[in-house]
Amino acid sequence: MVTIRDVAKEAQVSVATVSRVLNKRGYVHEHTRVRVEGAIHKLSYRPNNVARTLFKKQSKMIGFLVPDITNPYFAQLVRAVEQVTNEAEFTTFLCSSEEDLQKELRHLEKMQENHVDGVIVISNTLEWEHLQSLDIPIVALDRTFHEEVPTVRIDNYEESLRAIQHLLDEGCTRIAHIQGPAHIANSTLRFQAYTDLMQAKGLPVLSTKGEYDLKVSEQAVSRLLEDHPDTEAIYAGNDVMAVGALKAAQRMGKRVPEDLLIMGFDGIDWTEMVTPEISTMAQPIEEMGRQAAKLLLQQIEEGVTAPAKTVLHASLLTRQSTRGKVNR
Amino acid sequence: MVTIRDVAKEAQVSVATVSRVLNKRGYVHEHTRVRVEGAIHKLSYRPNNVARTLFKKQSKMIGFLVPDITNPYFAQLVRAVEQVTNEAEFTTFLCSSEEDLQKELRHLEKMQENHVDGVIVISNTLEWEHLQSLDIPIVALDRTFHEEVPTVRIDNYEESLRAIQHLLDEGCTRIAHIQGPAHIANSTLRFQAYTDLMQAKGLPVLSTKGEYDLKVSEQAVSRLLEDHPDTEAIYAGNDVMAVGALKAAQRMGKRVPEDLLIMGFDGIDWTEMVTPEISTMAQPIEEMGRQAAKLLLQQIEEGVTAPAKTVLHASLLTRQSTRGKVNR
Repeated sequence: MVTIRDVAKEAQVSVATVSRVLNKRGYVHEHTRVRVEGAIHKLSYRPNNVARTLFKKQSKMIGFLVPDITNPYFAQLVRAVEQVTNEAEFTTFLCSSEEDLQKELRHLEKMQENHVDGVIVISNTLEWEHLQSLDIPIVALDRTFHEEVPTVRIDNYEESLRAIQHLLDEGCTRIAHIQGPAHIANSTLRFQAYTDLMQAKGLPVLSTKGEYDLKVSEQAVSRLLEDHPDTEAIYAGNDVMAVGALKAAQRMGKRVPEDLLIMGFDGIDWTEMVTPEISTMAQPIEEMGRQAAKLLLQQIEEGVTAPAKTVLHASLLTRQSTRGKVNR
Repeated sequence: MVTIRDVAKEAQVSVATVSRVLNKRGYVHEHTRVRVEGAIHKLSYRPNNVARTLFKKQSKMIGFLVPDITNPYFAQLVRAVEQVTNEAEFTTFLCSSEEDLQKELRHLEKMQENHVDGVIVISNTLEWEHLQSLDIPIVALDRTFHEEVPTVRIDNYEESLRAIQHLLDEGCTRIAHIQGPAHIANSTLRFQAYTDLMQAKGLPVLSTKGEYDLKVSEQAVSRLLEDHPDTEAIYAGNDVMAVGALKAAQRMGKRVPEDLLIMGFDGIDWTEMVTPEISTMAQPIEEMGRQAAKLLLQQIEEGVTAPAKTVLHASLLTRQSTRGKVNR
């Protein structure tokens, strides 16, 4: 069998250089890259075997970077990822970054020092330049970093359009939006879909900032409903803020859905915890976690490095909070 | 004192080879391994001291075993622990065990292999025998394992008495209890306090099982209220089940607190998320996490090994769900 050493010899470079070319990571001079690729081609070398033949051992450990473990969306993703990784007898080195870049970088460093076999990253603060130098497989969840990084996510813009369409279908025209943080891509995409669709329909655009936070949203919605008491529906950029909107409405004596419809996004458990239960555009959280874990294990175990974009579909869950408006 | 260098000299190998044998990592020829093990035995070398004497450095990493990261009580503890450990520039190797003993043992093994400097353990399935062999500092949270393990917890029995006393003070006599799982110590202590106090007062004892689960509690409370419509108050063994009780009451058209008082235990965010907000016996979650982290760091950095029992106090939070009953 042709080994990576044969390729290195043929190309007159080190094994490490061949590895860099194979993994498309780290710096390799263009001339060298061409020579290595020529050698790979000439010897019909199958890079799939790299992981097993070159390194012989795995740490059987993956790293998982999440922004905030107290947010149930991330906690549910963690559980889904662990179901797959545990079956494969991998343990997960989980880190909650609080969206602090320094903390994220320190965690990534620790993970490397401890030879994790791969990393799943959810982050809005890390950039591609921070991940580029990692010499291990990566999968991004929830957000795209770079075309070379396999990613599992939904189409936030399209799914947001569908969420708003549901409120339109229920007969609402005065729909306000609670926006998430401006630095988070999925938040701005959901917001953009709202403004685009409302403008396309010639309907009023009215939004306020909820920062993906329950209490911030509750206060923002209280003010919004005071200033615009004729608001018929609230479309919250995520479920956490939708729960805040419900609290605000209930405190003001507004009945949901009789006086106000509320729609969330994400599909976390909280939407079923409150009364009335909140309609939401549910991300396939379990499926996303499982797919991300599988993509990572594939890279680790089979050396598959082809970038894969997995775009999954969300499901419209219509519950009490958006029912019965149609006859108004 | 015998050092790793002495062992290396005796076995005529490099220090790195001895290290590989000690850590059971990397390739070592069988003959070499036998020779190194012979030298270790002959010189009575104590590998316990390896970390400090050989490497002089800490891994600056701690392990944290929690039963279920999707339970906000644990997620909030994690955040509190990380606040302290991050300030000390330690990273946290977090594992969600799903109360699966095999998974817990595997995680502990991985943590040791990766030389964590210490471990914080929350578990109802692990026993002292599993922890005894760990050669690193341990702190137990939420539950006592053994007198030798520093522990941070509350007095679940006493605090449970206070929770029930609040319902008695509000004028209730027909108080039902929703029990947590029988294998969890804090759950049985809270239940025991309920039966003891009710019996001491000559009041009826009525309980049902909610398994610390929202949906299980919701169903159990529905049945309980159907069978005993004169129930005046529900004392739930934790907040998750209290939220389930509220859902059941609301679905049956019972007003809280006008028709039914609801009281929880733990003090998680969920109690403020619902309407009406739920009264609870709030554990000092932040403080517990911080204390546990500090106790662990003390052991790691100062070698303090004296067992410490830290018993913190819970706070009675009276909210809408238990107000206004007094005049009934």
